[in-house]
Amino acid sequence: MSDMRPSDTREHLLSAGLRTLHGRGFNASGVQDITDAAGVPKGSFYNHFDSKEAFGAAVLSRYWEERAARAVALLADEELPPLERLRRYFAAKTAGMTEQSFDRGCMIGNFAAELSGQSRLVRDQLGAILAAWTQLLTSCLREAQAEGAIGADIAPETLAAFLIDAFEGAVLRAKVTRDTAPLARFEQIVFTKLLV
Amino acid sequence: MSDMRPSDTREHLLSAGLRTLHGRGFNASGVQDITDAAGVPKGSFYNHFDSKEAFGAAVLSRYWEERAARAVALLADEELPPLERLRRYFAAKTAGMTEQSFDRGCMIGNFAAELSGQSRLVRDQLGAILAAWTQLLTSCLREAQAEGAIGADIAPETLAAFLIDAFEGAVLRAKVTRDTAPLARFEQIVFTKLLV
Repeated sequence: MSDMRPSDTREHLLSAGLRTLHGRGFNASGVQDITDAAGVPKGSFYNHFDSKEAFGAAVLSRYWEERAARAVALLADEELPPLERLRRYFAAKTAGMTEQSFDRGCMIGNFAAELSGQSRLVRDQLGAILAAWTQLLTSCLREAQAEGAIGADIAPETLAAFLIDAFEGAVLRAKVTRDTAPLARFEQIVFTKLLV
Repeated sequence: MSDMRPSDTREHLLSAGLRTLHGRGFNASGVQDITDAAGVPKGSFYNHFDSKEAFGAAVLSRYWEERAARAVALLADEELPPLERLRRYFAAKTAGMTEQSFDRGCMIGNFAAELSGQSRLVRDQLGAILAAWTQLLTSCLREAQAEGAIGADIAPETLAAFLIDAFEGAVLRAKVTRDTAPLARFEQIVFTKLLV
């Protein structure tokens, strides 16, 4: 692989990191595991990233960018009523989790659990991601309230943050039980009791 | 510490493990960190535990035993109406998290995120803990439904599991934001929208 361009090496590391850190967690993955998975020499890692911590932050950014793009595509789709967008959004996330057998969970939740106390860099980044994610749902919920599809007794920001947290908790339990039941309960309660 | 009895050494290891594994996570804590925190020789660790994994499982058992005892004391207190017990239960948990500045989170959620894919032993144990915890809340919710304090349109098992997952998700976000807002939102939505 000596003919690999530096930008290719960086890309290989990031995409191997997405798989490795998502599947095994941050502290259980060594730099060697990541370079092996990327098929690049171990020594090349530090040509591209100052530290494993900086690499973890870059991988998390990539993870969120992919998901944010999909979230925007679904949640800002003005062809559909806002409540229907939210329903499809969570159904798509559940389908994705089901496809991966629930075992990896969500990298945002995993890193929140594992790294909030260990890395200020990652914690600040998680804070920004959670705020941006909450904002995406807030806009959709605000539209749903404005058109009277759901009650307006709770601020859309509050509802949005609660939905994300409750979903992350369901994903966490699904990592343990390896079945769709926690995600099905989330959808049942959210769409029959909460968003009404 | 050469005059320490074996049962004392085991106890010291478990209580040091509770602090260390809860604060830093499983994979970021070495056996040496644990024996140092316990003030026992490193070599004594494997006299008491077959592996670090077995130790993690023993620490998780201890963590849950303490919390289960408190949960039973609050949730089965027949002096109070069941909905009031639930309110006090979550308020007490929030107070506990606030006291520890939200940084450690819940060991059950942390281990679910970090170890579900790594340890079958811990994953099975987490499954049993989540089932037992759900059962404790289910009984209380069933009583609340029976006396008409809350609607009976959703099975109490479903509500109970959702409440636990939503709470774990809020605890996870609070690890990131280091403030009580996620837990306050949980209480607001649960007790004004869901348990009505």
